[in-house]
Amino acid sequence: MDTSFIPDLPSGPLDLYRKRASFNWKEMKVVLEGEEGIKYKSIIWKTMQKDPVFGRGSLPYSLDEYREVTQKRVRRLVEYNMNSLAQNSNIETAMAWNQAILMYDSALSAKYNLNAMMCAVALIQTGKPHFQELAQKFENLEAVGCFCLTELSHGSNTKAMRTTATFDPQTDTHLPLPGILVGDIGMKLGQNGLDNGFVAFNQVRIPRESLMDRTGSVTKEGKYVTPFKDPSKRFGAALGALSGGRVGITDMCTTNLKLAVTIAIRYSGVRRQFGPTKGEEIPVLEYQLQQWRLIPYVAATYVMHIASRKLFINFSESTMAQLMKDRSEKQANLGKEIHAFSSSSKPLGAWLARDCIQECREACGGHGYLWVNRLGSLRDDNDPNCTYEGDNNVLQQQTGNYLLEVAREVQRGKKIESVMGSLDFLNNMKTIVFHTFNATTESDVMDPKVSIAAYDWLVVYLLKESSHKLERELKSGKDAFTARNDSQAYYLHSLSRAYVERTCLEWFYNYCTDPTLSPGLAQVLIKLCALFGLWSLQKHLTFCTGPISINHILLVPFISSELMSPCQHVTTKSGYISGPNPADIIQSGILSLCSQLKDDAVALVDVFAPPDFVLHSAIGSADGQIYQRLYNAMLQTPGSVERVSWWQDFVDKPERGSRPLAKL
Amino acid sequence: MDTSFIPDLPSGPLDLYRKRASFNWKEMKVVLEGEEGIKYKSIIWKTMQKDPVFGRGSLPYSLDEYREVTQKRVRRLVEYNMNSLAQNSNIETAMAWNQAILMYDSALSAKYNLNAMMCAVALIQTGKPHFQELAQKFENLEAVGCFCLTELSHGSNTKAMRTTATFDPQTDTHLPLPGILVGDIGMKLGQNGLDNGFVAFNQVRIPRESLMDRTGSVTKEGKYVTPFKDPSKRFGAALGALSGGRVGITDMCTTNLKLAVTIAIRYSGVRRQFGPTKGEEIPVLEYQLQQWRLIPYVAATYVMHIASRKLFINFSESTMAQLMKDRSEKQANLGKEIHAFSSSSKPLGAWLARDCIQECREACGGHGYLWVNRLGSLRDDNDPNCTYEGDNNVLQQQTGNYLLEVAREVQRGKKIESVMGSLDFLNNMKTIVFHTFNATTESDVMDPKVSIAAYDWLVVYLLKESSHKLERELKSGKDAFTARNDSQAYYLHSLSRAYVERTCLEWFYNYCTDPTLSPGLAQVLIKLCALFGLWSLQKHLTFCTGPISINHILLVPFISSELMSPCQHVTTKSGYISGPNPADIIQSGILSLCSQLKDDAVALVDVFAPPDFVLHSAIGSADGQIYQRLYNAMLQTPGSVERVSWWQDFVDKPERGSRPLAKL
Repeated sequence: MDTSFIPDLPSGPLDLYRKRASFNWKEMKVVLEGEEGIKYKSIIWKTMQKDPVFGRGSLPYSLDEYREVTQKRVRRLVEYNMNSLAQNSNIETAMAWNQAILMYDSALSAKYNLNAMMCAVALIQTGKPHFQELAQKFENLEAVGCFCLTELSHGSNTKAMRTTATFDPQTDTHLPLPGILVGDIGMKLGQNGLDNGFVAFNQVRIPRESLMDRTGSVTKEGKYVTPFKDPSKRFGAALGALSGGRVGITDMCTTNLKLAVTIAIRYSGVRRQFGPTKGEEIPVLEYQLQQWRLIPYVAATYVMHIASRKLFINFSESTMAQLMKDRSEKQANLGKEIHAFSSSSKPLGAWLARDCIQECREACGGHGYLWVNRLGSLRDDNDPNCTYEGDNNVLQQQTGNYLLEVAREVQRGKKIESVMGSLDFLNNMKTIVFHTFNATTESDVMDPKVSIAAYDWLVVYLLKESSHKLERELKSGKDAFTARNDSQAYYLHSLSRAYVERTCLEWFYNYCTDPTLSPGLAQVLIKLCALFGLWSLQKHLTFCTGPISINHILLVPFISSELMSPCQHVTTKSGYISGPNPADIIQSGILSLCSQLKDDAVALVDVFAPPDFVLHSAIGSADGQIYQRLYNAMLQTPGSVERVSWWQDFVDKPERGSRPLAKL
Repeated sequence: MDTSFIPDLPSGPLDLYRKRASFNWKEMKVVLEGEEGIKYKSIIWKTMQKDPVFGRGSLPYSLDEYREVTQKRVRRLVEYNMNSLAQNSNIETAMAWNQAILMYDSALSAKYNLNAMMCAVALIQTGKPHFQELAQKFENLEAVGCFCLTELSHGSNTKAMRTTATFDPQTDTHLPLPGILVGDIGMKLGQNGLDNGFVAFNQVRIPRESLMDRTGSVTKEGKYVTPFKDPSKRFGAALGALSGGRVGITDMCTTNLKLAVTIAIRYSGVRRQFGPTKGEEIPVLEYQLQQWRLIPYVAATYVMHIASRKLFINFSESTMAQLMKDRSEKQANLGKEIHAFSSSSKPLGAWLARDCIQECREACGGHGYLWVNRLGSLRDDNDPNCTYEGDNNVLQQQTGNYLLEVAREVQRGKKIESVMGSLDFLNNMKTIVFHTFNATTESDVMDPKVSIAAYDWLVVYLLKESSHKLERELKSGKDAFTARNDSQAYYLHSLSRAYVERTCLEWFYNYCTDPTLSPGLAQVLIKLCALFGLWSLQKHLTFCTGPISINHILLVPFISSELMSPCQHVTTKSGYISGPNPADIIQSGILSLCSQLKDDAVALVDVFAPPDFVLHSAIGSADGQIYQRLYNAMLQTPGSVERVSWWQDFVDKPERGSRPLAKL
């Protein structure tokens, strides 16, 4: 394999671990990111690094400075025609373009894409000729679009928006637009390079031609017309233009995982503290606790890389099929599967990245708390991934509802053949419910198939419990809305989470066991797979231990939308897990895998790490010279060793008690 | 009870819930915070609110501005002689002083206390007369002290510091000090009002009189002398001056919990989204999922309030006893118990506040992501509580080691009588190990005694497993250092966590069931107690389900420091939990308690909420006018509705492709 186009990493304290790695990190990089993708990202980053507009500082920008520099950077992306090398037909380059900018600064990515992609695509999709020209202007930054998507008092419930448009046949197009107030919503916790604003309309007239009315319009006579007969389908179609958001966010979170683990693992390979003898201290990566805190997130990063890539490929195919007006059942099912999967992969990614960044921050101690090491801005920039494009908790309900629907179809005898393969195991759900955990030793659980089988059972179990819970709530007299809400905390949200983890795990397992993969790479990937499986499964173990009741006659559907008849025979079996403590061998397996992977950990993050200029973290630098770089960063901070301008304050001494306290 | 000194809260959308509350929030406030404490805080906040130096803005400060205004505010605290009303003998006023400043801004609190308290106390404790005057100057801000506590490459391992002092008898005191470089470490993720700096010494001479040498000094002839015979005792004593840190941080985290839940609960009581019918939407607090996300943190806030208070009282007594040179065994044991408890209450508080703030941020959606609503700065300011005064994970090891020691003493026949009562249950550990979970219905688990009993078993179980794990590691040939490290992830860190949760739960239970408490208040507090117990216990359930092995002859210690003899008879019993699924009734109990408490939630946060000026959160305002206040905050942000100064950038259109990309 030709890896000569990937430069060597600089020598330094990390050599210790790089020499111990069991695999060639450059080969792994080419396999996972593709030669085209790697080269393309390299060109983007080299271009940026040469241009002072993309320079990095050791202090954060003020809000206004950050907005200004981001606007200048967006201009540059257009002037360099940066996305010219990205081809939608090539998954590596299409993803590389986004990832390159995301790794540099996610606010820049958002600002560029919301205008050139989201706004432009929304206009193009209207099909109106006079919007096509405007879309082109957006793409070239000759005009700037903005999205008005929500109300101050509305977020998730987009159906209940209260902004109303009243058609006035007297004026139809001509007047100027007083009554509009445009403003900025102010400082956010992160992504401040992106300016979020508000617009207030008060009795504003809008010309009829300006309506983006593919899904619902107003005639000249003031009559509302729509091509859709079913209002709920119309609503779904109106949101269609935004459906790529969750796919993009899944990858954005994966990118944040890559950045965070790079910083924390490199730091842990260099940072020394305590030791078994009085002599030299040992790198903190040698500690089991540090391994246990960080290495499962390295595994999660690899798993999410593959999942995000597969989701992106399928989403691209689905989008293409829509453009080609492919109305086959296969495409309709793929659309639903993508909707259901991305409605839980976006929450999974956002929460994994959230927890990973925080664990990395804490695992890097006080150094992790310094702005120059980037974990703080990563945390702030990743945070809204939990909220926008659907609050994570609300979004997961989409997946749960969909799975219940699929399970009912299986009960009715339908055979599921899902395009992405995430649902096929449900065809066996009637037998899966009888399976039990059959690993008895630590070495048994090293096989990822053990975790996949446990997830098969878990998803089926949670489907069954969710369904029963819903029926109990309905039976108790609650309306459908309340019954569904009262079944979320227990069990629907766990069901969505288990489903998406199971799917990501299985996809990664299929990837690692592909016979075309070189054995040297497969060996370490399969360990990551096993680790992710056990570590994720561990959080659900309580579900696996209790006894469960099963309808005696299994041909009677155990998932039904009807209330259960009270005379049905129900029996109890012990849970999935029983006998010698599986929780114990699972935890031992996790710790053992962490220990086996600790010498590979630095090479594993080298695979995904961008150049230092992009990573922008003193303690995460490729050469491992963390103290020199930290010290330099401090000294290079403007004013860091100067007397402050307001030093007179220290000379004038206060007089204790010279000012009176307020009265109660 | 006189509650007339507490002003009413303003009327508004929160009236809905305030009217539904089952108890009088003012009475609860007086019982929990004390009349003196409430009045004192009110005076402090009124004084601050009148003074423009304490004014609040709608944009964060730049680093330099924040440092300057914090310095000015520290001056004011001295000029107002703000702590004049705080009496160490009165727990309410002593804690009120800290809490009042912490609620306003924890960086201000840190900057004031590190100088006036930590530095001054360290000087006083040297006993050297010429340091007493300097300490007085620190307290009055006539001089500013700073702490040099760590090295760039050292944090937790303070014993291994590499800065060395070499005594030079030729010069003993007289030269100036070249070779010192003082600088600022730059932007942190939070608490930037506090300036953390660095100092580099290069061949610097320090006069012998300047040594803070209570625990180790140098004679004029260059000989090292110390009053301690045992070097490890000397090390402990040198750190003694810092022992209050963990006690203070426990309360700081409790304060952050109070602020975060106030913001999120008030917001959830006003924010409406969706509804069962097409008409009016319902407050999000009505949703089971929102209740489940937030109300357990309200319970945790109450539990931590009582725990922090009890810790502070005992710490104050212990400090007083030390000053009085009380060398009794009781005081020595109290010192150890405070050390062990605070080594896990600081991690518990820091992580609870971390998770609570994040959950509140997400539960408030996009509004939670706005800087003006304060959850971001709370997150950033709370974050270092996980790290300083001992990294949480490292610190917990102190507790685990101590508990193993106590358990061994019990095995040797010693009866434990702990001053704070956190250890007494271990006297029964030989019988506790045989206990089983005996609740069978949801209503059974509403009694907090069920959770306390489960924790009794859990701590004993984890003690046993930790001890066996340690022995297995030693037996496998590992040295003591490695064996201890390899027993942290499993089980020692869980042991520390279970111990501190159990103690906080029991203390709170004792508080709620005190017969002097009015029944109206007791009724709601006992629900909070039950909720905290079940919710905390739930995270450990996996430990409770597996079968455990028990030495056949129980008189043979099951916790021993010696390796187990291989011929010992071992039997297996089923776990603490078996039979009909307890995990199910625990989760049902949690959801039921959340539902029972949702109408009290707003009143429960009103009890601890500071005035709006201090809370500084548009969506957390006492009148519940969240949209008006948000909109005002946006409009009041400087420049929010103005054209940006760099608007020319939008007028000049970029030309796509006008700049060349870099070469690969």
